Amino acid sequence: MRTVDLIHKKRNGGELSNEEIGWLIEGYVQGTIPDYQISAWAMAIYFQGMSARETADLTLAMAASGDQVDLSPIPGIKVDKHSTGGVGDTTTLIVAPLVAAAGVPVAKMSGRGLGHTGGTVDKLEAIPGFQVERSTDQFLQQVRDIGIAVVGQSGNLTPADKKLYGLRDVTATVDSIPLIASSIMSKKIASGADRIVLDVKTGKGAFMKTLEDSVALAQAMVAIGTEVGRETVAVITNMDEPLGPSIGNALEVQEALDTLRGEGPAELTQLCLELAAHMVLLGGLAATYERALQQVTELLHSGAALAKFKQFIVAQEGDGAVADEPGRLPQAAYRVAVPAPQDGYIAAIDAESLGVTAMMLGAGRATKEDQIDLAVGLKLTKRVGDRVRAGEPLAELYTNRIDAEETDRIKERTVSAFGFSEQFVEPLKLMYAVVTKDGVQYL
Amino acid sequence: MRTVDLIHKKRNGGELSNEEIGWLIEGYVQGTIPDYQISAWAMAIYFQGMSARETADLTLAMAASGDQVDLSPIPGIKVDKHSTGGVGDTTTLIVAPLVAAAGVPVAKMSGRGLGHTGGTVDKLEAIPGFQVERSTDQFLQQVRDIGIAVVGQSGNLTPADKKLYGLRDVTATVDSIPLIASSIMSKKIASGADRIVLDVKTGKGAFMKTLEDSVALAQAMVAIGTEVGRETVAVITNMDEPLGPSIGNALEVQEALDTLRGEGPAELTQLCLELAAHMVLLGGLAATYERALQQVTELLHSGAALAKFKQFIVAQEGDGAVADEPGRLPQAAYRVAVPAPQDGYIAAIDAESLGVTAMMLGAGRATKEDQIDLAVGLKLTKRVGDRVRAGEPLAELYTNRIDAEETDRIKERTVSAFGFSEQFVEPLKLMYAVVTKDGVQYL
Repeated sequence: MRTVDLIHKKRNGGELSNEEIGWLIEGYVQGTIPDYQISAWAMAIYFQGMSARETADLTLAMAASGDQVDLSPIPGIKVDKHSTGGVGDTTTLIVAPLVAAAGVPVAKMSGRGLGHTGGTVDKLEAIPGFQVERSTDQFLQQVRDIGIAVVGQSGNLTPADKKLYGLRDVTATVDSIPLIASSIMSKKIASGADRIVLDVKTGKGAFMKTLEDSVALAQAMVAIGTEVGRETVAVITNMDEPLGPSIGNALEVQEALDTLRGEGPAELTQLCLELAAHMVLLGGLAATYERALQQVTELLHSGAALAKFKQFIVAQEGDGAVADEPGRLPQAAYRVAVPAPQDGYIAAIDAESLGVTAMMLGAGRATKEDQIDLAVGLKLTKRVGDRVRAGEPLAELYTNRIDAEETDRIKERTVSAFGFSEQFVEPLKLMYAVVTKDGVQYL
Repeated sequence: MRTVDLIHKKRNGGELSNEEIGWLIEGYVQGTIPDYQISAWAMAIYFQGMSARETADLTLAMAASGDQVDLSPIPGIKVDKHSTGGVGDTTTLIVAPLVAAAGVPVAKMSGRGLGHTGGTVDKLEAIPGFQVERSTDQFLQQVRDIGIAVVGQSGNLTPADKKLYGLRDVTATVDSIPLIASSIMSKKIASGADRIVLDVKTGKGAFMKTLEDSVALAQAMVAIGTEVGRETVAVITNMDEPLGPSIGNALEVQEALDTLRGEGPAELTQLCLELAAHMVLLGGLAATYERALQQVTELLHSGAALAKFKQFIVAQEGDGAVADEPGRLPQAAYRVAVPAPQDGYIAAIDAESLGVTAMMLGAGRATKEDQIDLAVGLKLTKRVGDRVRAGEPLAELYTNRIDAEETDRIKERTVSAFGFSEQFVEPLKLMYAVVTKDGVQYL
């Protein structure tokens, strides 16, 4: 087999066999196939696409390229949830204890990563004492004992994906649906999930800017799941404004606690219940989606989900009292209101720009070496469709810096993320569609 | 400027500026831009193409990446000729003295290269004593004195093209018209030509298999020439069978001498006269194409072209007597006739396959290190359209090897390059079209 022939085949629209894809990925990880051939191949895929079969083969080849987590010591169907990445997305912190309370085993290994805020394990570290490092045995035992554990990723998961993603990032081959889909799914499969619920974000603050592209990505991932025997359901949700008002690590933990107490923002609460219901249904713990939704709604309102979260915090050596006393979470030294510059209706909120603002305040990492300030971030007080008067706060900054000039710049940046209209503006839709192996259901 | 942004722009169908293209090529040659980004960029060009302006900018950037030959010390308009590569293509050896006799200064630096037979300088070395190494001063002085010099390439011409071509070769990005066109034209421009005549081969034995692709490549190169002020004319010629009957170094020198004596194969003679006429016209030495054609035809028949070739051989220390005594050229030890396996008309001759056969006999290099055997090769005795009887020779092999088994294999290979028909077959057309800055003229 010669790499140049496989690039040529793909370039001309041909379909690569399972053997050919496996050979490319193995050679790439082992270093016998150089970057410059793989980048040309990725660009050919960008233009020619991949069949469902090729995409599934690529996914499995990447999943098999490193360690694979074996969750079989845990009884029951392990359902994982993944979000394609948004801003102010606290869902994992809420959904995980919610489905655990419903009986779905949650055995999550999560990365730190780069971005607007930290990853899930960073957020959990905002809870005083919380430990994210656990041996595999401790991790499995905790899930068997209390139904939930979330730990930092260890080992060498999907090295092929890491290497390929790094290459795609510098060769303008990131936004290819089969490559994105296989990248995400390879990680989920290597993490040991039996079934997968995907939250595919769409809109200005998301990677996929149009509903069409988001549905296509969701379909590609659902097809992979079907192909490899890991049933997958995807929900397409709005990222034309931040999902919840809080963007920041401790702020999002607090928002999650509020939501589990039944006092969270309406949109965030609804989406968490829907995602949890899909997980419960896939986990075989309800006969219908409606029954699953009813079940998780009851668990939220009864306090069972919050209790499960507390139990989870304590199991990982965290301060369980934060559930009742949010003041025990790291607090920023200063709060700065960002007033509206004019009267009107909020017409748009640029989630991505606000994410960057939170990162500038110190809530996220721009490079791997950056330290996160867990206390800082921002909290929106308005959503799209809200009426606002000049001088009324649009948002509040939580900061530990006292540089007045910098704070002014960040305030300006925050204001410029908002669009205003004289006319009434409809609130945005929260969910657009559900994609299952049976097709797309638009909501 | 970031390379990834330029790849992205091209991938999305954008047009890169002169500055952007210059930056990419300079960075690539200097090693600050890695292969893996350039290969992704090349694949994006494969799919999105390049505008005439971009192609010209790329050509000039590659021409400027290394040494550039300055032919200005030579008076007159320097017209260079280039063939896109065929099999049994002896034209340079004939056209160069022909146009020199007409007054067009021929100052050619030629590479050795890989392929079915050697390059032009290899072929010239079949003439006993012939020297292809000359200082620049000697080279220029010889052209001033006798109007013609052909020497081996020295210095570092178009390193960007060399590096890019090597990369394209292993990333399935060779067959992109703007990339081929800029590669060829950058070398011609760096070699100092004022005007250029291109012989673009088309057909099974050529790089471009269809007339449409060949015309497109010719148009791209003519457009570059126009854009950069080096008027270019391209002739599209047939490579569905070898141009002349001889494939091999000394064999082709002999064929060139025969042709200059007016005793050459009709097709080869005709094409050489037409190419020479285009060069004389571009060189400003005739008022019309018809006058130019008449002029070079007279120079051929008067013996002036042959006399110029002799003068050229002697000036480069070669044995001028070969012109009258071809037996002084290297001779193969054995001649082996290849008989026709059946009666019929010759319907097809696979030029590329015969080129490989010549290489197997030792006439060409498969790798840079290979030694060429100047004496060996093969000579066809039939053309497409010829009637043949079983047992009549199709070709003669010229070989220095005595391995009977190998010879039998090569005979079989030679036969299998021929296609036969019971029905009468029309001889093939020699020339299809002429492409100038004013458009395409189909013949």
